[in-house]
Amino acid sequence: MQRPTLIPLLALAGALSAPAWAQSDPMKQAQGLFKPLPTQPPAVPGNPASPAKVALGKMLYFDPRLSESHAISCNSCHMVGMGGVDLQETSLGHRWQRGGRNAPTVYNAVFDVAQFWDGRAKDLEQQAGGPLVNPIEMDATEKHVVEQLKGIPGYAPLFAKAFPGGEAITFENVRRAIALFEATLITPNAPFDRYLRGDARALDARQAQGLALFIGKGCAGCHNGINVGGGQYAPFGVVERPGAEILPPGDKGRFAVTRTVSDEYVFRVPSLRNVALTPPYFHSGKVWDLRQAVAVMGNSQLGAKLTDAEVDQITAFLGSLTGNQPQVTLPILPPSVATTPQPKP
Amino acid sequence: MQRPTLIPLLALAGALSAPAWAQSDPMKQAQGLFKPLPTQPPAVPGNPASPAKVALGKMLYFDPRLSESHAISCNSCHMVGMGGVDLQETSLGHRWQRGGRNAPTVYNAVFDVAQFWDGRAKDLEQQAGGPLVNPIEMDATEKHVVEQLKGIPGYAPLFAKAFPGGEAITFENVRRAIALFEATLITPNAPFDRYLRGDARALDARQAQGLALFIGKGCAGCHNGINVGGGQYAPFGVVERPGAEILPPGDKGRFAVTRTVSDEYVFRVPSLRNVALTPPYFHSGKVWDLRQAVAVMGNSQLGAKLTDAEVDQITAFLGSLTGNQPQVTLPILPPSVATTPQPKP
Repeated sequence: MQRPTLIPLLALAGALSAPAWAQSDPMKQAQGLFKPLPTQPPAVPGNPASPAKVALGKMLYFDPRLSESHAISCNSCHMVGMGGVDLQETSLGHRWQRGGRNAPTVYNAVFDVAQFWDGRAKDLEQQAGGPLVNPIEMDATEKHVVEQLKGIPGYAPLFAKAFPGGEAITFENVRRAIALFEATLITPNAPFDRYLRGDARALDARQAQGLALFIGKGCAGCHNGINVGGGQYAPFGVVERPGAEILPPGDKGRFAVTRTVSDEYVFRVPSLRNVALTPPYFHSGKVWDLRQAVAVMGNSQLGAKLTDAEVDQITAFLGSLTGNQPQVTLPILPPSVATTPQPKP
Repeated sequence: MQRPTLIPLLALAGALSAPAWAQSDPMKQAQGLFKPLPTQPPAVPGNPASPAKVALGKMLYFDPRLSESHAISCNSCHMVGMGGVDLQETSLGHRWQRGGRNAPTVYNAVFDVAQFWDGRAKDLEQQAGGPLVNPIEMDATEKHVVEQLKGIPGYAPLFAKAFPGGEAITFENVRRAIALFEATLITPNAPFDRYLRGDARALDARQAQGLALFIGKGCAGCHNGINVGGGQYAPFGVVERPGAEILPPGDKGRFAVTRTVSDEYVFRVPSLRNVALTPPYFHSGKVWDLRQAVAVMGNSQLGAKLTDAEVDQITAFLGSLTGNQPQVTLPILPPSVATTPQPKP
């Protein structure tokens, strides 16, 4: 007589292991606030993709010869395989100079409303040109980049194929190709994406509690949408400005772009996707512990003194934002020849 | 009546397009002096391979957290996808310091008789530890490397799998794993390899003339074997010492290792495989033009003033040493956590 009771017992076990919260409003609420990442790279407006363009962009992304020293590539600070970041407080650039802000991840950046912490580039294409010519990053000039690439014969046919018709090796096309490659660096199928697609068991109990807190405490007021952030601007210190060790007074954020007083200490809200992989945190890169970052955010943005348990739960939820990391095969770069411009000593 | 004559004509055309030199001694002579690269990585004596070990070695090779700054990895100077080198006169290291010698390629290095320009490391395993602890390269210590890796929790199971039994995360095992990954970086199926395997048409006429000169003028006296070099030591300037701009008097090469006067200005003969991809040339990295490097070698090593045509032909032959470049998918590195040791500022 045991067999017949086994089936109802198993069914009950199944019902128990799907927690109660997963069957009602929370998922719907989350689905209203967030969107899962697509599994395929999105189209980039005004920059139609082609395999040739993406392949070229990948080469340029990894080619250190675009920098004045020939030692720094896009990948130096936005490392594929390492969360799309460099795990530095602020990046090391030309002649070992330190950048002013923590390097944001390149992963899923295509979904952000604008690029850089202060949003000074409207898209990846605009962004890609920035570090190339920044004296403390790659220290090149637009002219250097174009002459360098024209001096590497193997690039000519690749540019011609990627940008048929007209002058192919231009700074604009370099930016376009890099942006298209970067748009392929997405991290789909995080547990949270599976949850948003209806799989209630994709989050464990602690992550689910964290999600409820994330919404209930107000984090999702800024960190929402497809990138769980990245969609708007907000002052760092809405309620209480953190100390100078975390918010250095010299960096007024978006104020430098708009010269509007209300933009002082305003930054683009960072995406929290893969945030567990991308310490240290904040534009200043001053906080290495994600739990501490969560607590600081509670204080400064929400005026909420989160308990340790709440911090743990929210941090657990943030762990559910780690998706499939991009699998990238290193491009074989076209060789330098005798006439290729040499690195500056 | 045309059809019947067509067949003998085609046969004749075939005979003509296979040049005369390819049908007799030159190929046999070459086969006596050189060996084709294998298409599969060789076994490394005393360091048995396993998929887990090679995968771990690949991670370590690309992980900048092994360096004091967390900004420099093995791949920074021995770039996969760029000939296994950095295309610098001498490499940029910790705090933008310059190394003393040009970075040799990691490709096929497993076949060299010893490592470094002065052969001071007997194999890749010994070599791998060098730059890690060199203050002008990665500036770590053995202790730092071990503590760093122990501080990245994701590495523990990977080391345990790669080195089952006993303490797995050790400096020796780091070196072993990296060496095994490096042994996979081989470049088989160059035109010259196909030639050595019997395909007379794998070299074009100029390359074949270059090969004949390469042997006839004496280049192959040092540049021979599987790596077309890399198998012995030789003084730079056998016949005539080149000027200080190419052979800086301060670097006495292997003398620093052996303290033997006869080893002054002696260096390990470099492999010429993929040499067209790896400017600049010589231990000093002072010559960017492969043609010039060939001419300098003629003068200094052979006392032969090569004509421009001879230099062209030898250079064409050297181009036939470019093999299939390794296709490497970037490893997804285990993430840093709050307790992971941070980069030194």
